[in-house]
Order: sequence, then C-alpha cells, then structure tokens
Amino acid sequence: MKHIKKIGIAASMLLIALILAACGNIDNTTSVENGANEQDSVQTTGQTSKDDYAGVIKNGHYLVSKARGLTAARNSNNFNITSFEAGLLDISKGYYKPADYIFQEGQYLSMDRVQSWLARQTKDNKNGLNPVDNGKKNNKRNPIYIQSIEEQDFMQKNGKKLSLKGMTIGIAMNPIDYYQKQQYGATFEQKIDHDAMVKYGQEAAAKIVQRIRKLKKIPSNMPIAIAMYEQAPNDSLVGGEYYAVTQTTGDKITKWDKMNIANKVFPLIGSATGYASNDNKNFQNFQSQVQHFFPTIAGLTAQAQYVNKKLAGEHITITTQFYSQTEIISFTNFLAQVAPKFTPSGVPVDITVNSATDIQAYLSRGADDRDFSSHVFGSY
Amino acid sequence: MKHIKKIGIAASMLLIALILAACGNIDNTTSVENGANEQDSVQTTGQTSKDDYAGVIKNGHYLVSKARGLTAARNSNNFNITSFEAGLLDISKGYYKPADYIFQEGQYLSMDRVQSWLARQTKDNKNGLNPVDNGKKNNKRNPIYIQSIEEQDFMQKNGKKLSLKGMTIGIAMNPIDYYQKQQYGATFEQKIDHDAMVKYGQEAAAKIVQRIRKLKKIPSNMPIAIAMYEQAPNDSLVGGEYYAVTQTTGDKITKWDKMNIANKVFPLIGSATGYASNDNKNFQNFQSQVQHFFPTIAGLTAQAQYVNKKLAGEHITITTQFYSQTEIISFTNFLAQVAPKFTPSGVPVDITVNSATDIQAYLSRGADDRDFSSHVFGSY
Repeated sequence: MKHIKKIGIAASMLLIALILAACGNIDNTTSVENGANEQDSVQTTGQTSKDDYAGVIKNGHYLVSKARGLTAARNSNNFNITSFEAGLLDISKGYYKPADYIFQEGQYLSMDRVQSWLARQTKDNKNGLNPVDNGKKNNKRNPIYIQSIEEQDFMQKNGKKLSLKGMTIGIAMNPIDYYQKQQYGATFEQKIDHDAMVKYGQEAAAKIVQRIRKLKKIPSNMPIAIAMYEQAPNDSLVGGEYYAVTQTTGDKITKWDKMNIANKVFPLIGSATGYASNDNKNFQNFQSQVQHFFPTIAGLTAQAQYVNKKLAGEHITITTQFYSQTEIISFTNFLAQVAPKFTPSGVPVDITVNSATDIQAYLSRGADDRDFSSHVFGSY
Repeated sequence: MKHIKKIGIAASMLLIALILAACGNIDNTTSVENGANEQDSVQTTGQTSKDDYAGVIKNGHYLVSKARGLTAARNSNNFNITSFEAGLLDISKGYYKPADYIFQEGQYLSMDRVQSWLARQTKDNKNGLNPVDNGKKNNKRNPIYIQSIEEQDFMQKNGKKLSLKGMTIGIAMNPIDYYQKQQYGATFEQKIDHDAMVKYGQEAAAKIVQRIRKLKKIPSNMPIAIAMYEQAPNDSLVGGEYYAVTQTTGDKITKWDKMNIANKVFPLIGSATGYASNDNKNFQNFQSQVQHFFPTIAGLTAQAQYVNKKLAGEHITITTQFYSQTEIISFTNFLAQVAPKFTPSGVPVDITVNSATDIQAYLSRGADDRDFSSHVFGSY
C-alpha cells in the first residue's frame, strides 16, 4: 500500500509539473545542481514584472526554505516578520537584479543549523552565536542579541541547470531582549546598548560568513550580502529597520555601509519635532477629514518610512464600523477624492479600509500617479 | 455647559464643511429641500468614476440611512447583506444614471416605519406586511415572507438645492423562514413555496408603492423602482439573487420584468451538469494547479454569478498558511502567471489570498484585460 501511495504522489507531482511546464511563462528546466537528485524537475514561477523575482518550483511545489517558519516562530510582532523578510528581498534586489537572477528560499542553512546558531553558546553547542548564560536573572544577564537569521539564495540558469550565484543573509538584532525568569512566568525586558548591539552583530556576521564559506556546495568567490536589522519592540505598530549592509566574495567583511531607514507611526505620540513633523501634520489633517465621515468615529493610523530622512511611502489603515454595503462604497469614493489632497505625493501611498472583522476596501497611488485607484471588496 | 458643547460641535461641523468645500471635487451646495432646516449645508462625495454615484454629505457627515443597520441586524448571512445592498445599487444605475443623479441613503422610510412594515400584521400594527400569527408552531404556521426592505434615493441639483428625483426599493424575500418555537430555543426551518413567495412579494410591493405615494415629501409622478430579491440560505457561501424589477411613476405596478441571475459556489457539490459545469471544471483545474503549491494545502473556493445563464464574473478566495513574507510574494507571482490560463476571460475575475487571520494579497482582472494586476499587502 505504502509503495502504491508513493507512486501515486510521484505521478501526480509529475502531472502538475507537466501542466506547469505547459504554461507559457512557467519556465521549465530539468535538473538542479544542489539537490540530492540530479534529475529533479525544476520550474520557476515566472516574473510578474521586471521588479519581481521569479521563484523556484521543484517537483510541482514551491521550494520552501530549509529553515521554514523559524523567523515567524521566534517573533511575536508580525510587523517585524514582514519588514525583516520583505525588506531583505528589497535589499537583495540591489545586489542581484530580478532580471538576471531567480529567487530561491534559503536551501543551505538547515533548520537545525540555524537553531543551533541562534541558541546560546554552551559546552554542547559551540556554534551558538548568542552569549553563554552567565546565570544572572536581571539586567546583568547576557542578553539574547540575535533574534533571527534568514537566508535568501539567488540562482542563474546554466542550460537546464539552476546554479547558486549569490546569497543574502539577514540578521535580526534585539534592541530589547524579552525574557522570562521562570518558564511560563512574567516577561521582563532587558535593554541592549545600541553600540554593543551593532558590535555584537558585526562579529556574528563575520562568523556566519566564514561558516558559509566552509559549506561544501557554496561556489568559491560567490558573493554573500549581509544585511543587519534592528527589531522593533514587541508592542510596536510598525516593523524594525535595516541599519547596515555589506557584500563580500571572500571570507572576511572589510566594511559596512550604513542604511538610514526610520519607520514612524502617525499620529506621532507627544510633541512632534524633526523631519517627520510636517508629514505628521498632514496626516492629522487627513484624519480630521475622515474620522467624522460617519456618526461612528473612524480610527486612522499610518506607517511611514523614511530613507535618509526623506519620506519613502505611507501605509494608512482606517478602521470603522459600517452598517451597509452602500456606506462602504460611498466612503471609498470619498477617500479617493480627499486622499490626493491630504496624503504626500511623489511616494507610494496605500489606504486599507477595515471593518471590525474584515478588509472592506483598498486604495493605492504609485509614486508617479496623480489619482488613487480603489477597490471595494465585493461578493455575489 | 450643554450649550457650549453644542456650539462647539456646530462650529467643528462648520469647519469640516468648509474644509470639505475647499476640496476641488467635493461639490458644495448650501441648502437641502427635504431636510428640517432649509439652511443645512450639503456637499457630495464627488464621483470617482462615471460608473459610481456621488453620495450626500450633510453638515460634514455622510448622510446615513434613516433605517440604518436594520438590514444588517435582520440577516445572519453577511453574503445576503452585501449582495442585497450592492446589487440594489447596481440595479438603480440602470434607472438613474450616476452621471445624472446623486445617491442618497434612504431618508423617507424611518427606522420605526420599516420595522412596523417588516413585523407581522396585528391589531396594533395594521401596517405589518408579514402575515398574522396563526398560532401554529410547525409548517402550518404563517411564515415571515419579507426579511428586509431597503430604500435608496436619487437626487438632482436644482441650483443649490438637492431635490429627490427617483427612488429604488429593494424587498428581500425568504425562500426559507428560520424561526424559534420558544425564545432562545432551537432554530427551525420552514420552506416557502417559490410561487407563493413571488406572489406575496408582488402584493407587498404594491402596498409599499401606494404607501410611499402618500408620503408628504414625495414629488408626484416621481419614478419608483422596485427590485425583488430572494435571500440565500443562512449557511450559503454566496448571497441571494434579484429575480424581478419594475418601475412606476403612478401608484400601481402594472408589470414585472424577470431577472435571471444565479449565484454558484465552485467547486460545485455533487455531479455538475448544466450551464455552470464547464466553468466548474475550469475552476477545478485552477484548483489543482494551486492547492499543492505549498506543502500545506491551500483551500480554494469561488463565487460565480450567471446572468441569463452566462457567466458574469468570479470572486475566487484562496486560504493557506504562509510561513514567510517571501512565500506570499512568490505565491502571488505564481497566481498572476497561472490565473490567466485557468480563469474565465471576458468577465471580471478577482482573487483574494488569505492566511488564517488576514488578507495577504489581491489580484484582479477586468472584463477587457488580458493580465491580472496584483497587490501584496505589505507593512514597514
């Protein structure tokens, strides 16, 4: 029975692979360099636009990361997961152009390996990148500096083979370490000095590069990019920020490039000064336009991202209670009219409209657009 | 104190009204015919496209329905609410062109009035449109035929005034009446004969037209459109269907136009025959393409709408568990590649991608488009 089942699965995978291969844009290649089986069937998802990577489909399935789910499991703030992973992909695009490379979820650092790296150094775990437990249960304890490690692979086709041509490693550092003094006990916060965090991260990055170089399947001189990320606090309404990047073809990191990214949540709390204060004021004007549209007040917040102290984009979220579908439609029309006047131009802005339970409408404007396009989520 | 507060509110409303008026597309008119106060300040939301109505903003707020929330309160299936209300607006567009009319949520049928109409006829409630309680607690009871009544008003500007120029009334009929034999008791179903439902609805519609004609503020000979809707069962994954429409400028309804709308859920349950079977087969092909993309299976369903037995559009919903943001991005790229080949062309199709808790991505293609546009919901 077991054998029959296996054959059945293999046959259906082959069928899926064949169907996928029959699709115009789904590229078909027939073997893969790094797999156990040289005859594995590999396709890509195809590119949707020249700014997006094609991804790897193997035996009819998306090739998921060898350490799949580890970042999600180690983060209680979803904003950190999204900004760490999507931000890493954006950084990769600077090193490996989507037109020239195929994106592959990390295949060289296994779950076990990454877990041992993220653990503390102990007698049994010499590879632990976090410091030894000094036995302290207060601010004198050695904190967990490194929260997550993420690998992204960049492939090129050699004839019918996919070959590894580049790699990016994201390292998420803790500005605050959350810990329990006893299992299931209360959570305590240990602040980590910023300079100490940066220094610790650089040392860990150097070790990681050396270790990756020693892995069998890594081509010599293959470029490895490293991106350092500072986690946002667990209660933050926006994710953390990448603060340094580098790339090396050797086994040493010789210099780091600083990234000046800052994420803000509007309306700002307290007195707003500095480079974000004007955008915050504009947001508050938009807020006062919108929040009294219905008798029930609408809640508005925005995530704003600054690169080199210049606004790079805004995600606006509006939550309100709707009493009919026509209210949702009218509200969306209203937003499409007022948003161009009260939201920043020249950068991408999107607006998500939620009821208590669900998304109801979505509006967006690209950096070069004048008007918002809008969509009301409907059903028959 | 109370007076000061009122003045404060009035002042802030005026401020909002002034700000709104300052916006280019937010039309400003300064009095309204039907309101208590001839000097009320009225604007509209403006039109987003020529297919959308502008809506009425009064004193800085959206003018909500006088019977706001009644339809939602009387329906446990959200799909019915959406399709009843949005469907009514679409039907109205056939009678009152969005370019020529402004949409106003129903202002002439008050909450009390509609509630008394929806109640059973009793000695104290002679206006009840549902039948008298015959005391039976089984299938011999008189069922509740009419579940919801919705009013939509269509206005035109006369100089600076908004005048009522047309009205649409939606009447939602029950093919099944859900009832309790005792308060908080189990729910029983009473099936209602289709012909009896249609006949009962026509008689109720005639009474409603006569009653609206007698209301003071209704201009004589103003066209009133009536649209009859059959509710979907409470456990349906798609909303109900409009089955008849008419319009009258008098106080009688002389004829009804049948609407042949049918909503289906794919994959169809049981053996699929008839006009939807081919679309169902295509959907199942799409499903087999997509559901094994990840090791975790993805769930796919679709709502399809047929008008005169021809496919008019599909809403596809995909739910799966994602383990990283890059998986969501790759999955969306994959969908954008395969969807054009496996979803019907020539009709609008949209695809919503959900995780267990949230929407993650959205893809759509208009009736005339070749490619899907896609959006991955992101955050900083």
